[in-house]
Amino acid sequence: MISREMLLLGKEPSVIRQIFEYSRKRKDEIGADKVFDFSLGNPSIPAPKAVNETITRLVSSLPSTYLHGYTSAQGDMGVRTKIAHNIENRFNCECKAENIYMTCGAAASLTITLKAMVSGNEDEIIILAPYFPEYKVFIANAGAKAVEVKCKADTFSLDIAAIEKAINKNTKGIIINSPNNPSGVVFSKEELEELAGLLEAKQNEYGTEIYIISDEPYRELVYGDKTPTFIPKLYNNTVVCYSYSKSLSLPGERIGYIFVSPLLKDSEDFFAAVCGAGRSLGFVCAPSLLQRVVAECDGTASDIGEYDKNRRLLYNSLTAMGYEAASPDGAFYLFVKSLEADAAAFCERAKKYELLLVPSDSFGVEGYVRIAYCVSYEQTENSLPAFKALYQEYKGEK
Amino acid sequence: MISREMLLLGKEPSVIRQIFEYSRKRKDEIGADKVFDFSLGNPSIPAPKAVNETITRLVSSLPSTYLHGYTSAQGDMGVRTKIAHNIENRFNCECKAENIYMTCGAAASLTITLKAMVSGNEDEIIILAPYFPEYKVFIANAGAKAVEVKCKADTFSLDIAAIEKAINKNTKGIIINSPNNPSGVVFSKEELEELAGLLEAKQNEYGTEIYIISDEPYRELVYGDKTPTFIPKLYNNTVVCYSYSKSLSLPGERIGYIFVSPLLKDSEDFFAAVCGAGRSLGFVCAPSLLQRVVAECDGTASDIGEYDKNRRLLYNSLTAMGYEAASPDGAFYLFVKSLEADAAAFCERAKKYELLLVPSDSFGVEGYVRIAYCVSYEQTENSLPAFKALYQEYKGEK
Repeated sequence: MISREMLLLGKEPSVIRQIFEYSRKRKDEIGADKVFDFSLGNPSIPAPKAVNETITRLVSSLPSTYLHGYTSAQGDMGVRTKIAHNIENRFNCECKAENIYMTCGAAASLTITLKAMVSGNEDEIIILAPYFPEYKVFIANAGAKAVEVKCKADTFSLDIAAIEKAINKNTKGIIINSPNNPSGVVFSKEELEELAGLLEAKQNEYGTEIYIISDEPYRELVYGDKTPTFIPKLYNNTVVCYSYSKSLSLPGERIGYIFVSPLLKDSEDFFAAVCGAGRSLGFVCAPSLLQRVVAECDGTASDIGEYDKNRRLLYNSLTAMGYEAASPDGAFYLFVKSLEADAAAFCERAKKYELLLVPSDSFGVEGYVRIAYCVSYEQTENSLPAFKALYQEYKGEK
Repeated sequence: MISREMLLLGKEPSVIRQIFEYSRKRKDEIGADKVFDFSLGNPSIPAPKAVNETITRLVSSLPSTYLHGYTSAQGDMGVRTKIAHNIENRFNCECKAENIYMTCGAAASLTITLKAMVSGNEDEIIILAPYFPEYKVFIANAGAKAVEVKCKADTFSLDIAAIEKAINKNTKGIIINSPNNPSGVVFSKEELEELAGLLEAKQNEYGTEIYIISDEPYRELVYGDKTPTFIPKLYNNTVVCYSYSKSLSLPGERIGYIFVSPLLKDSEDFFAAVCGAGRSLGFVCAPSLLQRVVAECDGTASDIGEYDKNRRLLYNSLTAMGYEAASPDGAFYLFVKSLEADAAAFCERAKKYELLLVPSDSFGVEGYVRIAYCVSYEQTENSLPAFKALYQEYKGEK
């Protein structure tokens, strides 16, 4: 008998994967330009030119056994120093190379951080719906229990009272994902300060540590006059899980880092536990070539102007048609209210108009759909009549 | 309270790391050419030229969002097809793309495979001493119990009778590492056939499946007239954990694969559990650029002629001096009998002659040292007087 849990996880039909397969089939049938696939959170903007230029330069200039050789488990010291320096400068907060652990992307950052902090199976990690569905998988891997708390209806901002109710002596951490996948919402500084105050009070009440795990793959994808709040500035017990997947359009390369705040209680021990967890899970080091590439490109970012054009066109057009959506300030997702209670049924009906959307149920909330607008502007423009026709079908205007 | 287990693992002083730090310090003091550091298993031969050429060609010819984008969790289908095809041709055994799961290197291959197969904490995984120390860490991560069985004294070949004694109804698997780290021994086809026969009989006796996990990072590093035996040809319930770290000198890039034999019982379910375990541990996909690179370079290998020169010089010289060593047929390790019972004390004494060796204790056997000869020929040549002087000190000939 093999692991039944892993078997089920491996066989679990992924909603997004099913849409992806349908999309491919449908594109073959009627032509790729006729299908409006908004299902995948895969960057559509190329990596900045500096990325490929750096790759080419490094392979032609550095000795092979150095460039492709093991780095230390925490990452190359030069790479960590550069990244730490940039964090210090950009956010005006203390960060040294010793606080940075290079990882194989955001998922690895999360599984390592969770495994480092969870000390027993009564430990609870709070996740805020709507959430990235894999959080539950990663929390289970660490041997803890996921506790779901819903964000406020319609705005999807933090519901501090609901979070307060969910905290108890077993609360080990809370995952914050801002800009948010799938809602596109960016939590305000005021909300986060309120959260920090609550967690401080609860730590004092229970005599425990409650960590914020700040999952920030979308940190660089913020639009208009919004700015992302850097949580380690507000709350000491913070661990940042970062990935270059979206900011540098490198999702397949698996490269990111963990920043253990030096202000976190017993920060050095926590960092050592991160090293232990990385070792235990089988991450020997982050890919060595890409470590050097992101260090050189840290601070540059893909041009998000294209996402922003799609965002404004979609948000303005859809709300003008009558759709309701969460405030789309970050990431590349628009979270739109389904026109019937059952979001999956709504997505089925949208297929009639060749619109491929993801129902919100797997994100832990009902009645919404996620529109991933990391697609061409042309697709966005061409999809508008379909959105209109879908709306009219529901409202009986047709 | 964070995870005490991970904290200890992260803080655990690594013997090899300590030697590495000593080496750096000592080289600063007396000059790098005066220190004979044989402690690290880090390839000293550059990657084949084709590797960097392929990297440069791919980044200049493939669209960025494709090349650096997510592949499926199992890996790019073209990559898996190519690798499967090469396995079929080279070993004349059935292997399809559907049997190949691309990973972030050998450690990931092992943690994923173990997590996929372990179904409860009474499960036991047999490891053969001398063994790669991280096996214990990976088995603990999967929630199973490591059961140590010693190889035969002096030859470090399989002790089938001892393995038989260790097998019971809870035995879930056995890790085979040939060519072996640290002994350099290559298990013969006859030994492996005997093992396969034993496992078949025990499976029948207990009505269980007992998997061979064939950890093969050194498969391509075999010298003289020895050839590696491909275990899936001998035993159906085999999972191969492969890495390109040594064959293509890419240890930092973290790229390898799992081959789940199609002859393994319920092979498709096992493969699905591998997918589930990869997902659970936070491996989203193997690095996308490197997947394509190794697919194009699979079948080529670093020129191991330099390792072979070191191997022959060391083995012949040391045995002529009076040292005893295991038959050095593979990998890039020579396993030499310590001149006193306490291998750690012997290594301390070797430092007087600037010889940096790894005592065998952490590999699960006593009284040996590992000499990693993935170094320059010059270092190997220059170290011989030091080995001689060390021998003479012990034998009182000086």
